[in-house]
Amino acid sequence: MASHKLLLLAGDGIGPEVMTEVKKLIDLFNKKGLAQFSFDEGLVGGACYDAHKVSITDETMAKADAADAVIFGAVGGPKWDAVPYEVRPEAGLLRLRKDLGLYANLRPAVTYPALAEASSLKRELVEGLDIMIVRELTGGVYFGEPKTITDLGNGQKRAVDTQVYDTYEIERIARVAFELARKRRNKLTSMEKRNVMKTGVLWNEVVTQVHNREFKDVTLEHQLADSGGMQLVKNPKQFDVIVTDNLFGDLLSDIAAMLTGSLGMLASASLGEVNPKTRKRKALYEPVHGSAPDIAGKGLANPIAMIASFGMALRYSFDMGKEADMVDNAISAALARGLRTADIAAKGEATIGTTEMGDAIAEEI
Amino acid sequence: MASHKLLLLAGDGIGPEVMTEVKKLIDLFNKKGLAQFSFDEGLVGGACYDAHKVSITDETMAKADAADAVIFGAVGGPKWDAVPYEVRPEAGLLRLRKDLGLYANLRPAVTYPALAEASSLKRELVEGLDIMIVRELTGGVYFGEPKTITDLGNGQKRAVDTQVYDTYEIERIARVAFELARKRRNKLTSMEKRNVMKTGVLWNEVVTQVHNREFKDVTLEHQLADSGGMQLVKNPKQFDVIVTDNLFGDLLSDIAAMLTGSLGMLASASLGEVNPKTRKRKALYEPVHGSAPDIAGKGLANPIAMIASFGMALRYSFDMGKEADMVDNAISAALARGLRTADIAAKGEATIGTTEMGDAIAEEI
Ligand SMILES: CC(C)[C@H](C(=O)O)[C@@H](O)C(=O)O
Ligand SMILES: CC(C)[C@H](C(=O)O)[C@@H](O)C(=O)O
Repeated sequence: MASHKLLLLAGDGIGPEVMTEVKKLIDLFNKKGLAQFSFDEGLVGGACYDAHKVSITDETMAKADAADAVIFGAVGGPKWDAVPYEVRPEAGLLRLRKDLGLYANLRPAVTYPALAEASSLKRELVEGLDIMIVRELTGGVYFGEPKTITDLGNGQKRAVDTQVYDTYEIERIARVAFELARKRRNKLTSMEKRNVMKTGVLWNEVVTQVHNREFKDVTLEHQLADSGGMQLVKNPKQFDVIVTDNLFGDLLSDIAAMLTGSLGMLASASLGEVNPKTRKRKALYEPVHGSAPDIAGKGLANPIAMIASFGMALRYSFDMGKEADMVDNAISAALARGLRTADIAAKGEATIGTTEMGDAIAEEI
Repeated sequence: MASHKLLLLAGDGIGPEVMTEVKKLIDLFNKKGLAQFSFDEGLVGGACYDAHKVSITDETMAKADAADAVIFGAVGGPKWDAVPYEVRPEAGLLRLRKDLGLYANLRPAVTYPALAEASSLKRELVEGLDIMIVRELTGGVYFGEPKTITDLGNGQKRAVDTQVYDTYEIERIARVAFELARKRRNKLTSMEKRNVMKTGVLWNEVVTQVHNREFKDVTLEHQLADSGGMQLVKNPKQFDVIVTDNLFGDLLSDIAAMLTGSLGMLASASLGEVNPKTRKRKALYEPVHGSAPDIAGKGLANPIAMIASFGMALRYSFDMGKEADMVDNAISAALARGLRTADIAAKGEATIGTTEMGDAIAEEI
């Protein structure tokens, strides 16, 4: 049996609590002989800043680089609102994405049947919803230079951010999205603002070329990001796979997640290039939700998104599709038994805490 | 009675059809002696490109500059997908915004009582919704330089867009937003991505300063744009006024508009600085919806957003609050009579066309 090395970075807020539930599953998989996982842990985000005055250390970066997959909790919180920009909690996550080359962020937005009623949208619009948002994650305005604030004198400052995309960056993320569409319902929607942004013009052009050259069998549609956002809210089921840039992906994937009513349930995978020699790819898995400082430390957090992220690691990093299905089914089974953390409980429904939910899912496996 | 000079720019798609209904109202106001409007007309967008190979002419720009208000329809359509970037239909609108200095874009997102059911959101979440989105309109990534596509050779291109904000640009839009909040429910939410963008850092800092110096009586809240988008979808009624940059404003205002279920009904105002001598300000009024090429020329378009935009002109450019209320009430009355264009009709409801709806509203006045 192949042995796999994980790096667990729990981060801030509810991160450590939900990560504890992943450790249970790792133990369980090892004990059952389903896999052979070893893991190391490290600090990231505000927790790392408090200890080391940076949001991730070089040592932890080296461990992340050596790991077969990074399992990430969440970072940030009001406690660190005033720390310098360069070492703010989010910088740790951004460095991981950039330095590991994790350009492909996969964010499935699915409605769990038991939770369709939790959506702010009408039930019939979200029931059975299953969208995959593919977000470019190492380019665009997140990393482009210059990125500065300059003092102009006279009480005036000038802030600048730069959005940059090269052809190859768009090509590779488009390929990931087309491949996924092929395995799903064969439809890809590309979103940009080509009517305003040059990066949108190039994005549109390159996605079209990749389509014409390699993926003629997939239906491709282009939407402007603003009207794409509207369509998401109006009729989300029209979409299968959506591919978009780093910043639009940030907004649109959060909105899609919220539509499902299942925010506390949604996982994401961030993948790098496949190494042609080892056939492995760098990868990081994290829940879509944030660090939720308001409920941190109270044992109330929903661990399902974190557990589902571990499930995505099984699927995308370790080729353990069967075991990933086991995790997904265990989650569904726990929900079907009526178990609810506070975030997904309907009014008046009984709720359980982080540990109980984690235990219940482990039992189902 | 003061006389007011309007420039009507109908544009493309359904633009001319819905503009016809505004002309009816102008006539009516003049005949009833409620005002003394004169108007000129011009081409913009694809229509102007077809005639002059630019999306707006210098001559029309001069007329816009001389007018007391510009009433704008909509631009764009698949017909012009392949025209050069510099003369694409949208460039005409962007030049108007930039050259007239229309930095403050006011986009009310309100649910018309008769249409609460048309929203994709649950009725109780949108009934009575009344948000004002204040979008910065002459800065940010829309106009920052460099904005280029460069050929790098080897089949590679590099596209660059630049987001720039200076202190004064953020100050003046923040003031507009705070002033509006004071006249409403006294709450302002500012949205940016300060955890990733330097412009977000400066935005946050300047809005906070303006608050501390001039608007301590207004409640100010900061949200990251991605979680702000989620909150809009989850529970829109938590918001009163939202202030945000050009690009986030583009996405978030469209999403807010769609939430109301009243997209075909929503108007917007784009305002410049008040001239201290004349006490006038440049202004452009346009519907939030686009040119809807699919239904253009069929007499099916909903003219209400266009008519409501004219109503906003009465309110914000001509200090005719009473007359603006007359327009708004006429719209509500027509809806209350059960009149519906196709876009706002429930399944099975009888529908009327653009002209009938325009006539009905004129009658109500
Ligand atoms: C934490 C933050 C830097 C991050 C982002 O903006 O990418 C988050 O919002 C996300 O979507 O993963
Ligand atoms: C037509 C287009 C250039 C415009 C924009 O992006 O600002 C439109 O989407 C809007 O919101 O007014």
